[in-house]
Amino acid sequence: MTRERVRSLLTRVADGTVSPDHALDDLAKEPLESLDFATIDHHRALRQGFPEVIYGEGKTAEQIVQIAERLAERHDGFLATRLSEESSARLASRFEGIEINKLARTAHLPGLDSPPEGRGTILVVTAGTSDLPVAEEAVVTAGAVGNRVEQLIDVGVAGIHRLLSRKDQLFSAAVVVVIAGMDGALASVIGGLVRVPVIAVPTSVGYGAAFGGIAPLLAMLNSCAAGVTVVNIDNGFGAAMAASRINHW
Amino acid sequence: MTRERVRSLLTRVADGTVSPDHALDDLAKEPLESLDFATIDHHRALRQGFPEVIYGEGKTAEQIVQIAERLAERHDGFLATRLSEESSARLASRFEGIEINKLARTAHLPGLDSPPEGRGTILVVTAGTSDLPVAEEAVVTAGAVGNRVEQLIDVGVAGIHRLLSRKDQLFSAAVVVVIAGMDGALASVIGGLVRVPVIAVPTSVGYGAAFGGIAPLLAMLNSCAAGVTVVNIDNGFGAAMAASRINHW
Amino acid sequence: MTRERVRSLLTRVADGTVSPDHALDDLAKEPLESLDFATIDHHRALRQGFPEVIYGEGKTAEQIVQIAERLAERHDGFLATRLSEESSARLASRFEGIEINKLARTAHLPGLDSPPEGRGTILVVTAGTSDLPVAEEAVVTAGAVGNRVEQLIDVGVAGIHRLLSRKDQLFSAAVVVVIAGMDGALASVIGGLVRVPVIAVPTSVGYGAAFGGIAPLLAMLNSCAAGVTVVNIDNGFGAAMAASRINHW
Amino acid sequence: MTRERVRSLLTRVADGTVSPDHALDDLAKEPLESLDFATIDHHRALRQGFPEVIYGEGKTAEQIVQIAERLAERHDGFLATRLSEESSARLASRFEGIEINKLARTAHLPGLDSPPEGRGTILVVTAGTSDLPVAEEAVVTAGAVGNRVEQLIDVGVAGIHRLLSRKDQLFSAAVVVVIAGMDGALASVIGGLVRVPVIAVPTSVGYGAAFGGIAPLLAMLNSCAAGVTVVNIDNGFGAAMAASRINHW
Amino acid sequence: MTRERVRSLLTRVADGTVSPDHALDDLAKEPLESLDFATIDHHRALRQGFPEVIYGEGKTAEQIVQIAERLAERHDGFLATRLSEESSARLASRFEGIEINKLARTAHLPGLDSPPEGRGTILVVTAGTSDLPVAEEAVVTAGAVGNRVEQLIDVGVAGIHRLLSRKDQLFSAAVVVVIAGMDGALASVIGGLVRVPVIAVPTSVGYGAAFGGIAPLLAMLNSCAAGVTVVNIDNGFGAAMAASRINHW
Amino acid sequence: MTRERVRSLLTRVADGTVSPDHALDDLAKEPLESLDFATIDHHRALRQGFPEVIYGEGKTAEQIVQIAERLAERHDGFLATRLSEESSARLASRFEGIEINKLARTAHLPGLDSPPEGRGTILVVTAGTSDLPVAEEAVVTAGAVGNRVEQLIDVGVAGIHRLLSRKDQLFSAAVVVVIAGMDGALASVIGGLVRVPVIAVPTSVGYGAAFGGIAPLLAMLNSCAAGVTVVNIDNGFGAAMAASRINHW
Amino acid sequence: MTRERVRSLLTRVADGTVSPDHALDDLAKEPLESLDFATIDHHRALRQGFPEVIYGEGKTAEQIVQIAERLAERHDGFLATRLSEESSARLASRFEGIEINKLARTAHLPGLDSPPEGRGTILVVTAGTSDLPVAEEAVVTAGAVGNRVEQLIDVGVAGIHRLLSRKDQLFSAAVVVVIAGMDGALASVIGGLVRVPVIAVPTSVGYGAAFGGIAPLLAMLNSCAAGVTVVNIDNGFGAAMAASRINHW
Amino acid sequence: MTRERVRSLLTRVADGTVSPDHALDDLAKEPLESLDFATIDHHRALRQGFPEVIYGEGKTAEQIVQIAERLAERHDGFLATRLSEESSARLASRFEGIEINKLARTAHLPGLDSPPEGRGTILVVTAGTSDLPVAEEAVVTAGAVGNRVEQLIDVGVAGIHRLLSRKDQLFSAAVVVVIAGMDGALASVIGGLVRVPVIAVPTSVGYGAAFGGIAPLLAMLNSCAAGVTVVNIDNGFGAAMAASRINHW
Repeated sequence: MTRERVRSLLTRVADGTVSPDHALDDLAKEPLESLDFATIDHHRALRQGFPEVIYGEGKTAEQIVQIAERLAERHDGFLATRLSEESSARLASRFEGIEINKLARTAHLPGLDSPPEGRGTILVVTAGTSDLPVAEEAVVTAGAVGNRVEQLIDVGVAGIHRLLSRKDQLFSAAVVVVIAGMDGALASVIGGLVRVPVIAVPTSVGYGAAFGGIAPLLAMLNSCAAGVTVVNIDNGFGAAMAASRINHW
Repeated sequence: MTRERVRSLLTRVADGTVSPDHALDDLAKEPLESLDFATIDHHRALRQGFPEVIYGEGKTAEQIVQIAERLAERHDGFLATRLSEESSARLASRFEGIEINKLARTAHLPGLDSPPEGRGTILVVTAGTSDLPVAEEAVVTAGAVGNRVEQLIDVGVAGIHRLLSRKDQLFSAAVVVVIAGMDGALASVIGGLVRVPVIAVPTSVGYGAAFGGIAPLLAMLNSCAAGVTVVNIDNGFGAAMAASRINHW
Repeated sequence: MTRERVRSLLTRVADGTVSPDHALDDLAKEPLESLDFATIDHHRALRQGFPEVIYGEGKTAEQIVQIAERLAERHDGFLATRLSEESSARLASRFEGIEINKLARTAHLPGLDSPPEGRGTILVVTAGTSDLPVAEEAVVTAGAVGNRVEQLIDVGVAGIHRLLSRKDQLFSAAVVVVIAGMDGALASVIGGLVRVPVIAVPTSVGYGAAFGGIAPLLAMLNSCAAGVTVVNIDNGFGAAMAASRINHW
Repeated sequence: MTRERVRSLLTRVADGTVSPDHALDDLAKEPLESLDFATIDHHRALRQGFPEVIYGEGKTAEQIVQIAERLAERHDGFLATRLSEESSARLASRFEGIEINKLARTAHLPGLDSPPEGRGTILVVTAGTSDLPVAEEAVVTAGAVGNRVEQLIDVGVAGIHRLLSRKDQLFSAAVVVVIAGMDGALASVIGGLVRVPVIAVPTSVGYGAAFGGIAPLLAMLNSCAAGVTVVNIDNGFGAAMAASRINHW
Repeated sequence: MTRERVRSLLTRVADGTVSPDHALDDLAKEPLESLDFATIDHHRALRQGFPEVIYGEGKTAEQIVQIAERLAERHDGFLATRLSEESSARLASRFEGIEINKLARTAHLPGLDSPPEGRGTILVVTAGTSDLPVAEEAVVTAGAVGNRVEQLIDVGVAGIHRLLSRKDQLFSAAVVVVIAGMDGALASVIGGLVRVPVIAVPTSVGYGAAFGGIAPLLAMLNSCAAGVTVVNIDNGFGAAMAASRINHW
Repeated sequence: MTRERVRSLLTRVADGTVSPDHALDDLAKEPLESLDFATIDHHRALRQGFPEVIYGEGKTAEQIVQIAERLAERHDGFLATRLSEESSARLASRFEGIEINKLARTAHLPGLDSPPEGRGTILVVTAGTSDLPVAEEAVVTAGAVGNRVEQLIDVGVAGIHRLLSRKDQLFSAAVVVVIAGMDGALASVIGGLVRVPVIAVPTSVGYGAAFGGIAPLLAMLNSCAAGVTVVNIDNGFGAAMAASRINHW
Repeated sequence: MTRERVRSLLTRVADGTVSPDHALDDLAKEPLESLDFATIDHHRALRQGFPEVIYGEGKTAEQIVQIAERLAERHDGFLATRLSEESSARLASRFEGIEINKLARTAHLPGLDSPPEGRGTILVVTAGTSDLPVAEEAVVTAGAVGNRVEQLIDVGVAGIHRLLSRKDQLFSAAVVVVIAGMDGALASVIGGLVRVPVIAVPTSVGYGAAFGGIAPLLAMLNSCAAGVTVVNIDNGFGAAMAASRINHW
Repeated sequence: MTRERVRSLLTRVADGTVSPDHALDDLAKEPLESLDFATIDHHRALRQGFPEVIYGEGKTAEQIVQIAERLAERHDGFLATRLSEESSARLASRFEGIEINKLARTAHLPGLDSPPEGRGTILVVTAGTSDLPVAEEAVVTAGAVGNRVEQLIDVGVAGIHRLLSRKDQLFSAAVVVVIAGMDGALASVIGGLVRVPVIAVPTSVGYGAAFGGIAPLLAMLNSCAAGVTVVNIDNGFGAAMAASRINHW
C-alpha cells in the first residue's frame, strides 16, 4: 500500500465517502506476508514511497510470478528487474497492462494510483552505445517510481564536444545519472560542470583490464569532481532509486 | 567569487550604489590564475556554488598557503582538507579568523558572504568511535558550504537498539550520511528505514580482511537497500559535498 | 562404520547376542579402501561422527556411484553434494530409498542406524529468496548428520522489521546459520542479537562489485558483532557441518 | 550489568536482602549512555552474556579511559584490546587490579561477579612462535569471559609429529582455536582429526605472497576438513568470543 | 632432433657406418622452421633434452596438425597438451601409433629413439579425486620425456592417516609432485616429511574463495615446509617438466 | 570527412574545379549525427586523422550496420572491430568491397581517398601462435589507417635464438608492437634491443595465474627496459592506433 | 660511449686529427664492466642512444656513487633517479657540475657531448599539484636525453575549461605526457583532442579506492580515446624515455 | 642431530670407540623440546638433512637466542634468517664463531660436522643490484646446508648480451636460482637456455604496478619456458633449500 493510497483513503474517510470500519479493514492487512520462499514487505511502500521491487536474478519464473501476484493483489503495482526471457514471458501472459522492456530486462505493472511526481527532471547520460541496457533499466525504474526522465546518449569524453554541445540539457536537470564503462571519465567531467547531484554508474562494458567494470568503478569513486556518488556496477536500478529519493525529497 | 557575491554586486549596480565600471573591474578578474604549481579555478564558486577546496595531501605547506592566499584575496574564503600538522600551523598563523579542526584535519576561513543555507538538515551517522575523524571532516565541510548538520555517534548494528532508539532524529533529516568501517552494515539498515537520500562512506577502520576499507566499500556498493550511493573510502569531504548538492538543489 | 554402529555392536557382544568373532570380522574391515580414483576413509564416521561426504563437483557420475557403493556396502549410508543432474539421476536409479533434493543438489541415503540427535535446534536464516539453494544444502546436510533444523526466510536488513518480528524463533535456536549475499549485513545484526554461536555463509548472489560473493565474505569476516564465524562462499554444507559439531558436542 | 549480577540481584530481592525499590534503582540505570564520541551499550552484558569490549585501535587513550570508567562504574569490569602502549599505561594507572598483557595488547579489569564458566576447555593451538601475540589475545579474551583455556604452541605441519604427539590434549578439548599464518594448513589437519568445533584464525605472519594473512585466510576458508569456521585475520579476540559462545551454550 | 639421435649419429660416423657427408646433411637441417602461424624450434631437443611441446589451447586443430607434422618429419615424436576433442580426433586419425589420453587431454607420438630414462622415480600425489586430470597430464608428460612414474591418489590431509599409511612409497621417490586444490595443505605436510625435491601444483578444484586455484597457490607459495617449489595453477605439464629436469640431471 | 578529403576539396576550390558554394555545402554537413542509440562524431577524422572506429562488442548487428551506413555515406569508409559472426555477415552483405577478417574479427570498408601513409614500417611481433588473433587485429587496424606493416611470429623468449636470428627485421622498424601472453617477457627483451618506440600488448593467452592477461600486463608495465609503453589486454586495435600516431607524426 | 661520441671520433679519424690506433684504444674499452654488485652496460648508449640510467631505489649511496664513477669515467655523463637524500648529497659532493633536483629526486651529470635534440616538443601535462614530483622526474629525464620540454600544470577535468583554454599549447606538441592520479580522466580527454602520441602516467596520488594508483592505471588502460599508451604508476622516467624514443625516431 | 652425526656415532659404535650405552644416551635425547614459546624439532636434521632454521621475523631477540641455544647444545649448529639488527647483535655476542651477514640478514653457526656437499654447483643469478639482499640470503643458506655456490650479478634482460656473454657459467651449473623483480623476465630466458632445474625467486624490487613482487611472481608462474618452478616473493632462503634438495638427491 503506497503512501498515496493511504493518504487518499484517509481523505475519503474524512469526507465520509469511506466508513472508518472499511478503511480499518484495508489498513489492517498484514504488512508482512510469508511465502515458502519469500517474506513480502507490503509496508515498504508506506515507509519508503515505493513498493518492494522484485529482483529477478536467482529467482525462478514461478517464484517471481507468485511474488508479483501478492503485490498486485494490493493494487500497488510492481516493478521487476533482471528478468530472464522466460520470466518476462510468464509475467506478460499473467498480468494485463504490464509493460515489458527487453533491453532493460524489466517488467512494470502500474499501480492503481500514480506515484507522486518528483520536483525536477532526472537526466540519464550514457558514454557509449554499449551502456544502453543499463541506462534503460535506470529510465524504466525512475519512471515507474514517479519521475520525469530525459536521456543523453553516446557522449563519451573521447569526443568532448559531443557533451559540451549539450550543455543546456545538462544544466536544466535536477539530478544527473552518468552511465559509463571503460575509463568512467564522463562522470568526472559532468561532475565538474553541473551544480546538481551526480550519480555515477560504472558498467561492465569493456574488456581486459576493465575487469568487468572495476576500472570505471574505481575511477568514479576517485572522481576529481567533488560530490559525485557511485552505485554498484551495472546498477541502473539503484541509480534511479537514489535519484528518485533526491527528486522526491 | 561566489554566486552570492556576484548576485549582491549586480543588485548594487541595479540600485546605483556601485558603478557599472567598478563592477566590471571586479568581474573582469581572471577566472584562472596560474601559480608555478597550480592553476586556480576562481570560476568554480560561480559555476558550482562553492569555491575550489584545497586538498592538502601531497602539497607542501608553502604551496597550500600560496593557494589559500590567492583564494582569500577574492574574499571567497576557503576550505582546506587533509592537512598535516605543519600545514595547519602555517595557515593558522597566516590567516586571522581561520577555524582549525584537528580531528578533521581541516582549516576553514569563512568568506565575506555566508553561503546560502540548504533546505534541510544533513545528518551524519557513525557506526563507531574510530569513524569520528571521517565524520568530523564531513561535518566541517557541510557546514562550510552552507548546511545545518547534526550527528548521531557510535550506533553500529551490533547493538541495533542504539539506532532504533533514535528514529526521530533519523526521520527528520533531509539527507543522511552514514559512516562505517568493518562490515559497513549500518548503511543498509538505515537505507531500509528512511525515505531520503542516503550517502554511505566506508572507512578504513578495521584490520585484516577489512583491507583498508575495501570490506565496507563493497558491502555498501552491494547494499540490499535500494538507492544508497557510495563515495570513496574515508571520503567525508566528498560525502558532504554530495549531500550539499542535494540539500541546495 | 559410524560410532553408533560400533557402540551397538559392542553392546550386543556384551549381552551375548553377537559372538566376539563375528564382531571382530565386522570391525576388521579395512578402514581405507582404494579405488582407481579415490581412497575412501571408512574410519571417518568412527573418528568424527559422520561418514565421508561425497563432493560431486569435478567427479564423473560413474566415480560418484562407485564411491557411493563402497560406502553403502558398509550400511553407513551416505550424503552427496554439488551433484549434476546426471549424477543425481544415476544415484536415484541405483539406490533405493535415496532422497534427492534438486534445489540443494544433494542426494542422501540414510544409514542403518540414525545418527544421534544434537542437543538443540539449528536455525537457518536467509536474507533473500536467491539464497535458498545454499540454505537448502545446509538444511539437508544438518538433517543428514543428526540435527533438528528450522528455517527463517527472506528477512534481509533492508526491511529490518521482518527480522525483529521473529525474535522468538531467533532466541530459541542453539546455533544460527546466517546465509546472505550482497552486503552480508544480516550476519552482523543477528550476531548482535543472540547469545548462541552464529555461523555466517556468504553467497554468490548479487552482481558487479559483489564479485561472486567476496563482498558478503569480507563483510562477514569484519562483522562488528563479536564472535561470528564464517565459512566459504556458498558453503551451506560446511556451515551445517560446523553447526552440527557444535550441536553434538 | 551482566546476567549474573541481575540474577543475583533478583535472588536477593526474593530472599528479602534487597528491597524492591533499591533493585529498581539499580535496574533503571539507562541501558545506553552517550559520550561525545561513543554510545555505550550497557545492555549488552545482559543480552549476550559479556559487556561491550573496548576495541582500542583508532581510539585515543583519553577516549578509552572515559569509556572504561563508564563501564567500571557499573561494576561489570571491562576488557580492552588492541591497546597502544600509551593507552595501556593510562589504564594501568587509572584502575586498580587491572591486568595488563603486553604481548596480547590487552587490559582486563575483572567485574564484581565472575562470569559463569563454560562447560569444557578451549584449546588454543599455534603453528609457530610468531603467531603468539594473536594466541595470547585469544587466551586473555576467553579467560575474561569465563572459560578454562589451554595452549599448544608451535606445532605447525612442517613437522607433523609435533602435533600427532599431542593427540590426548587435542581430543580432550571442547573447542579448538587454530592460529596459523603462512599456509594455514594446520587448521585442515586438526579439523580432520577432532570431532569438536574448530575455529581457524589466519595470522598476518609471513611475507611476500602471504599478503598480510590472505594466504592462510583463503586456505582456511577452503579447508578440506568439513565444518571448520574462520574469523578475520589476526582476530584472536573474535575467535575467543566465538569459542565462548559455543562453550557457554 | 634429440640429443640421443645426435649422439647415435656421431657414433655411427665414428664407426664408419654412416659417412660424414650423410651425417652433415642430417645435421644441417634448419633448426628453425617457419610456418605462417608458428616458428618451430627444432633445436630445442638438442639444447634441452626434449622437443618443443605443442600447447593446444588457442590453436586450431589445423595449426596443431601442421606443427605436429613438422616435428614428426624429424622423427623426434611429439607431445601435445590441452587438446580440444576435435584436435585430439584430428591427431588420432593423422598419426599412427599416437597415444591419446582423454582425461589428461594429451596426445603423444613416441620418437624414433626412446628418451634416456631418469635416475629415479617421480611420485605424483593427489589430494582428491577431482585433481586427477591435472595429475594425469603430469603422468603422461613425465613418461613422454623419459621418467618412471608412480601415483598416490586421494590422500588429502582431512584424513591424514591416508597419507601416513603410505610412507614407504613417499620415502622411495626421487621427486614428489603434489597436486591439490582447496587449501593446498598436502604440499606442506609432504614437504615436511621427505628429503627429496617437492613440486607443488595448485589446482582450480574448489569454489567460492578458492578463486580458481588462488587459495592453494598462495598456500603452497607460503608453505611452512622449507624448499617446496610451485608451478602455475593446473600446470601438471610444467610440474612434470621440472621434475624431469631434476630426475635427468 | 578525413583531413585528406578536406585538403583535396580546398585544392580543387583553389584551382577552380569546385565552386566555393559546392565546397561549402560539403563542409557544412553536421559534424555530429544522432541516432537513437549513438552520437556519431564525423569530425573525428578531421581532428585526429582517422574516422570513428565502430567497436562491435555490446552492439547489436542492427546498430552496427546503421552506424556504418552513416559513416559510409560520407565516403570516409569505416573500420569495425570485435565483430560477432552475425555482425560480420550483415556488414559483408550490406557493403560492397568490404574486407572481412575472421581471425581479427574486423570489417574494413576503404574510404574514397587512401589515408596518407606513415613514415616507416610498423613491425608486429608475437610471442606465440595463440597470440595471432590480437596481432591480426593490430595488423588490420594499422593498415586501415595508413601504415606499412610487417610481422614476426612465434618468437617467444623460451627460445631466444628465434628472436635474435631476426635482428635485421627488428632494427629496420619504425615502431615495434610486441604481443605476448603468459610472462610477457618478450617486450622487455625487445625493448632492450631496439632504439625505436615499443608498444606492448598483453594477451589473455595462458591459464591459471595468468588471470586473463594480468600476468603479462603487470610484467610489461614493470618492464626493465626503459621506455616501453603498454595498452590494454588483447587491445591490438589500440596498439595499432598508438603506433600510427607515432608513425604519422 | 654515446653514438654522438663514436660519430665524432670516426669523423676525426677520417680527417686525420685522430690516429686509428688512438681511436682503437678508445673503442676497445670493455662494453661490460663488472663491479661486485653491478654489471654496467657501457654499450647501451651506442645501442639505444642514451647511457644506462641509475635507478636509485634499493641501492646504497655507496653503490650509486661507484656506478656513477664508472659511467663518468667514459665521459658519457649519467642520470640517476629515485635518489634518497643521502644519495643525492653524496653525488652532489662527488661530481662537479651535477644538477640535483629535489622534487624529482634526480641527479644529472651532463656528458661531454650534448645528446642530439629530438624533432619536436614534449609536453608534460599534470592534473593536479600533487602530481608534480612525477612530472618533474619526466621533465628532467626528457631534458637529459635530448628533448625540448614544456609543462601544463593542474588542468584536471573537474574544471575542464582550464584545459580547453590551453588548446594552442596542446596542439603544438609532438608528444604529450599526461600525468594524473585519482580518476585518470585527463588522459582520455587529451587523447580525444590531439593527433599526436599520448603517453599516460598514473600516479599514486589519492587515497582509499585509488589503491596507490590502481584506479588511474586501470582508467588509462581502458581509455575510450584510441591510441593512448600507459606506463607504470609514478613512472615519470619511463614516460619520458618513451616520449624521447618517439621524438628521436 | 644431523644425519652425519648419527652416522658417525653408529660407525664409532661399530668399531668399538663408543659404547652402545653411551650412544644410546646420545640418541635418546628428546626429539621435541618445548619452550614457553616454541616446540623445537631436533629430529628434523635426521629426517630432512638439515636442522630447523630459525625464522627471525616476528620473534623477539630473546626468543631467538633461546631457540639458538637449544639447537647449539646438540652441536648441530644453526642458521637464523630475517634477523633484526638487535637480534643479530645478540647472537653475535652470545655465540663464538658465528657468521653474521648484514646484507642477507642471517646468522650462521657451523655445526660440529660439516654437512655433506651436494653433487654440483648452485648458480645464483640476479637481474639487478637491488635484488642482492635476496640473493645473499640464498647464497648463505645454500652454503650453510652444504653446497658449492656461484653468483652472476646484474644480468637482466634489458641488456640481454650481459647474460649471453656468460653462457659458460650458466651451462656448468647443476641448479640455477634466478632472482628478479619488476618483470621477472630473466627466469624465462634462462629457463629456455639451460637443461638443469631452474628455481625462480620474484623480488619485491620495483614500484607501482610491481605490487611488492606480484608482477614478477605472476610472470614467473607463467613462464613460457617449461619446467621453471617458483618460490615465494623475496624467498632466497626457500629457493636455496629447494636447490639443495635437488643437489643432494
